[in-house]
Amino acid sequence: MASIGIVGGTGYTGSELLRLLSGHPHVEVRVITSRAEAGQRVADALPMLRGRTELVFADPADAPLADCDLVFFATPNGTAMAQAQALLDEGVRVVDLAADFRIKDVALWEYWYGMPHAAPALVDQAVYGLPELNRSAIEQARLVANPGCYPTAITLGLLPLLESGVIDPTRIIADGKSGVSGAGRKATTGLLMAEVGESFKAYSVAGHRHEPEIEQTLRLCTGETVSLTFVPHLVPMVRGIEATMYAPLIRTVPDLTEIVARRYRDEPCVDVMPADLPLETRSVRGSNLCRISVLEPQSKGVVVVQAVIDNLIKGAAGQAVQNMNLMLGFPELAGLDSVALAP
Amino acid sequence: MASIGIVGGTGYTGSELLRLLSGHPHVEVRVITSRAEAGQRVADALPMLRGRTELVFADPADAPLADCDLVFFATPNGTAMAQAQALLDEGVRVVDLAADFRIKDVALWEYWYGMPHAAPALVDQAVYGLPELNRSAIEQARLVANPGCYPTAITLGLLPLLESGVIDPTRIIADGKSGVSGAGRKATTGLLMAEVGESFKAYSVAGHRHEPEIEQTLRLCTGETVSLTFVPHLVPMVRGIEATMYAPLIRTVPDLTEIVARRYRDEPCVDVMPADLPLETRSVRGSNLCRISVLEPQSKGVVVVQAVIDNLIKGAAGQAVQNMNLMLGFPELAGLDSVALAP
Amino acid sequence: MASIGIVGGTGYTGSELLRLLSGHPHVEVRVITSRAEAGQRVADALPMLRGRTELVFADPADAPLADCDLVFFATPNGTAMAQAQALLDEGVRVVDLAADFRIKDVALWEYWYGMPHAAPALVDQAVYGLPELNRSAIEQARLVANPGCYPTAITLGLLPLLESGVIDPTRIIADGKSGVSGAGRKATTGLLMAEVGESFKAYSVAGHRHEPEIEQTLRLCTGETVSLTFVPHLVPMVRGIEATMYAPLIRTVPDLTEIVARRYRDEPCVDVMPADLPLETRSVRGSNLCRISVLEPQSKGVVVVQAVIDNLIKGAAGQAVQNMNLMLGFPELAGLDSVALAP
Amino acid sequence: MASIGIVGGTGYTGSELLRLLSGHPHVEVRVITSRAEAGQRVADALPMLRGRTELVFADPADAPLADCDLVFFATPNGTAMAQAQALLDEGVRVVDLAADFRIKDVALWEYWYGMPHAAPALVDQAVYGLPELNRSAIEQARLVANPGCYPTAITLGLLPLLESGVIDPTRIIADGKSGVSGAGRKATTGLLMAEVGESFKAYSVAGHRHEPEIEQTLRLCTGETVSLTFVPHLVPMVRGIEATMYAPLIRTVPDLTEIVARRYRDEPCVDVMPADLPLETRSVRGSNLCRISVLEPQSKGVVVVQAVIDNLIKGAAGQAVQNMNLMLGFPELAGLDSVALAP
Repeated sequence: MASIGIVGGTGYTGSELLRLLSGHPHVEVRVITSRAEAGQRVADALPMLRGRTELVFADPADAPLADCDLVFFATPNGTAMAQAQALLDEGVRVVDLAADFRIKDVALWEYWYGMPHAAPALVDQAVYGLPELNRSAIEQARLVANPGCYPTAITLGLLPLLESGVIDPTRIIADGKSGVSGAGRKATTGLLMAEVGESFKAYSVAGHRHEPEIEQTLRLCTGETVSLTFVPHLVPMVRGIEATMYAPLIRTVPDLTEIVARRYRDEPCVDVMPADLPLETRSVRGSNLCRISVLEPQSKGVVVVQAVIDNLIKGAAGQAVQNMNLMLGFPELAGLDSVALAP
Repeated sequence: MASIGIVGGTGYTGSELLRLLSGHPHVEVRVITSRAEAGQRVADALPMLRGRTELVFADPADAPLADCDLVFFATPNGTAMAQAQALLDEGVRVVDLAADFRIKDVALWEYWYGMPHAAPALVDQAVYGLPELNRSAIEQARLVANPGCYPTAITLGLLPLLESGVIDPTRIIADGKSGVSGAGRKATTGLLMAEVGESFKAYSVAGHRHEPEIEQTLRLCTGETVSLTFVPHLVPMVRGIEATMYAPLIRTVPDLTEIVARRYRDEPCVDVMPADLPLETRSVRGSNLCRISVLEPQSKGVVVVQAVIDNLIKGAAGQAVQNMNLMLGFPELAGLDSVALAP
Repeated sequence: MASIGIVGGTGYTGSELLRLLSGHPHVEVRVITSRAEAGQRVADALPMLRGRTELVFADPADAPLADCDLVFFATPNGTAMAQAQALLDEGVRVVDLAADFRIKDVALWEYWYGMPHAAPALVDQAVYGLPELNRSAIEQARLVANPGCYPTAITLGLLPLLESGVIDPTRIIADGKSGVSGAGRKATTGLLMAEVGESFKAYSVAGHRHEPEIEQTLRLCTGETVSLTFVPHLVPMVRGIEATMYAPLIRTVPDLTEIVARRYRDEPCVDVMPADLPLETRSVRGSNLCRISVLEPQSKGVVVVQAVIDNLIKGAAGQAVQNMNLMLGFPELAGLDSVALAP
Repeated sequence: MASIGIVGGTGYTGSELLRLLSGHPHVEVRVITSRAEAGQRVADALPMLRGRTELVFADPADAPLADCDLVFFATPNGTAMAQAQALLDEGVRVVDLAADFRIKDVALWEYWYGMPHAAPALVDQAVYGLPELNRSAIEQARLVANPGCYPTAITLGLLPLLESGVIDPTRIIADGKSGVSGAGRKATTGLLMAEVGESFKAYSVAGHRHEPEIEQTLRLCTGETVSLTFVPHLVPMVRGIEATMYAPLIRTVPDLTEIVARRYRDEPCVDVMPADLPLETRSVRGSNLCRISVLEPQSKGVVVVQAVIDNLIKGAAGQAVQNMNLMLGFPELAGLDSVALAP
């Protein structure tokens, strides 16, 4: 059994890691930290884990993280970059679920995240943890930058069509919609159910941090200039992301679905759906899947790609576990084989 | 007091008409029909109207609709086109909340609605009931085609920028999101709460009937070729439509918001918001307003327009009452002055 | 026009007062305070009020409340008791929407609210603002204690049966369910949509502050010992309270509904429904009504009373306006005649 | 691998059986019937099962159910009683998820279910499938009547206190709340999201079929007269049941929680919670657990018991799988070890 640590155990990605790892056959969570809850039993704070764990939240200051084989950072942006080097020096592998190591251009990162980067040297070393793109690199990585939730759905949706030169990379629209758990477990008025229930809105329309992350990946994959307009929206539900992407078709192809399906033929966590089946977020709720469908409506020269994920699983903790499995040599789906919970 | 009839009183647009008209100072609903509920008291079927009406649902076969000054059709597509001529012949004005008279090209209508049109002659005569576009014509109209819900939001959002030549009319994307009441009160599995609650999906991606309606209006207004890709989505909430529109900027303008605000300066049912305020569907729930905001994110040459309405009010029954007010010479906002119900 | 002040304008009861009073024919809100938002335009913080008000939030320290005819306290518990005397001394009438003056037994109040009472002398003077019980006293009152949301529904539901001696006052169960807006607009983790959406729970099972308030009223009305077990629950919706009450039948009566209907025959804000019609919270959403139904299921000797209100209207701001109307001699329903918004 | 059949595969209990059994190590679903969907691939109708099953819905008329080791009836009431005998005669074990065999008094069953019973002889033979009560009998059973959803939660909550003589069995109140999936996947107006979303109501207040089922079990367990008043409510969420039960305390006990905890000490699917922890339906969503807590609020002599289950799992398909495991000699939790999905 590999020994696992989690820094930041009381947010949604932390508790989701605990949930997924509690059923993992090859690892054991040995340490979980929380400044606010230090000393409290995990199962008291997270009743769904009663009977599954005897862990107690450790104070970050004296948690024996260096004894772990791998440590997840399920922390706000800015935490992992301050602590990762010390763990790496001890031979601990690190997966950061926040954004600290996602963007290679440090100045760009600092612009969007509004703080100086504490460990620019590590940025180069970090592998962007999208297994469908970087599987071999992830297997060798010491430090993995787990992708953002929107970037996972949007990148997986667009990648095959961009790689095959079917759509214009300079005119991409991504209209994203997320359940409220994507905003984390911060006590803020704007996320109260009385504020966001039975309502719908766009947010961060002027610019969202996930846009440069998506553009970076798409540019690396295609070697071309990419221009993306991305507008996220908040859905009055708890879990799930749907992204609808639009791009001009620049090459006639007999079967759009076939292009996407071929790209992901051997991918265990991507399911390409026929365009005539409905693509609902509930079809991936609780699972580590990204489901995708693609079509060109009304022969108008615009390709529409839809992608759905569970933002906390394939969009966060599940993908982190998938990365961990690759890094530690376990079967890629260990701990990740749940069927989606629908209805 | 003008005498009003409603054909089809048990769907959501019919009950919303009753609700709005119960507080209208200048009209009285004299007849409301329902085949299924004929003979039943309206207030028993719609408890929110207890104490507000003594109406009984009349059988459509013998309802005295010809005695009314104006009749609303709150019926499925295909009903009004069979009955409107007889009422018009009696001097009754007609507002159809369904789609029978919205599309001028009868062949196009028949393609999208899958039935032969029963009254092509009336199509020409019908005025498209968007007051912000056709106020004078509506005032004179005998027959008004009340716009669809998505078309109301999307058209109002795009109109000022197209009229002023700011965006490219051939590359418009409209990503629409609607609460479930937009699908009506049909007993279908796909609209059960257990199917659509806590989930999100696109639907009719291959083509939706509101697309030709929107294109027709935009084309008429701009005199140009218009090409729109429209994908609607279902939101797990009851009321509200949000539409996010994307189009390439083709002319530099100092202030996008000012263009939209100027266009609607004298419009009582359109509110142009500063781009930095959140635009939520709840801000129009229960009101006859369309709120709009516009910006060009990150100077990328793509304009993003957001528009929100209450799909049952400005998107259906409220707009129908607004049209009735214009047709009968009442103050345009009579019966329509509710403040949105938020939270 | 009477001049109105509101202390605490950014919570849900404050914004609901603004919404209701914006359509009131006989009053004008002249002052609204908010420490956090002082200087900000009300319509920027509450977009549904755009175009309805030019008010700016005033700092509580220098707001000209003493110039008002009546001041509402839409503040947390403990604020009104510190400030009411000064206003009363200036001849201003006061309605407190919090709990400061609801409970006559000051020691009991201090036990449940966990603080010393700052103005015990005012407690005697305050009139409990349930118009269906205290209409004449409210008309004369200088200081009104607006009832709690659960107490409004539960008291109105039980009153007729207790007054007529039909049920055992010592064995009452009240199972209450509230939408999340009842908990206010505090930034707390426990009210995030990701915490309370798509879930249901009881809370404060060991004891809730509304229990002594309900017992006090029932005891005063019946002159008898009353014992109530009250368990509130949180419903994943924004607005609405439903309470189901159970009590042993101690006297055979021919028609339970008739007893309740007779009691409220002349009440404009109570609607007694036939027991075979469904009683849904949405049938009162946005309205100042309490709807009630009563029956004895399966002849088992237990009476079941159901009551529904909109917690922010008849359960808070609407009832406060109803009280204001009585205090200032306006028609009781002025500003309160909205039909419920359903669906 | 045992061979399993499911009659009625397109309702929620049928699809939930498929979901649970797709991960079961010792069984394989060989046959699933659906009249409406015969010939269609299961994975097309239930996209969450894509990649998990190659099954095709069989026509009930010629499905090889007799070759199965065990057949589940996930059908409307009245189907299993017509077909079970033939399967039992072939040596097939049967679990009925509907109500056909739950009530021992056939006349009482016919009163509540409104049809003549087609197989009264089987009623005696059927074992009521509540493992916490009838584990040994279930292990030997050929025919198991799977309990109703409300009865599972309410019976498990009340049983320990009744068995130990702590509460008065003649004055029990059970206030139940269920998510909408409990009403099944029928296309009815009353279950549309636009009807039940953002609203709350009681239903079947005059009498619900689960009341005699609960009373029967409690009477059998205590040997005493039991009188229960049960009022169910509909919660605007998809999954989950919460029941709050009230009963007079008739014996002083030092620790109510300890009584319940002791009764379920060895039960793998019941978790007794300390009374000061919140008991939320989401803490059991997706799991086969019933969580219970108990207390006597304010020393008023009334015991309050709360119980939560996932209505489709411990309240239906999960409990059916638990029964199957007992009947076929598998580990009781095989296929049932998911941690609840929260948030």
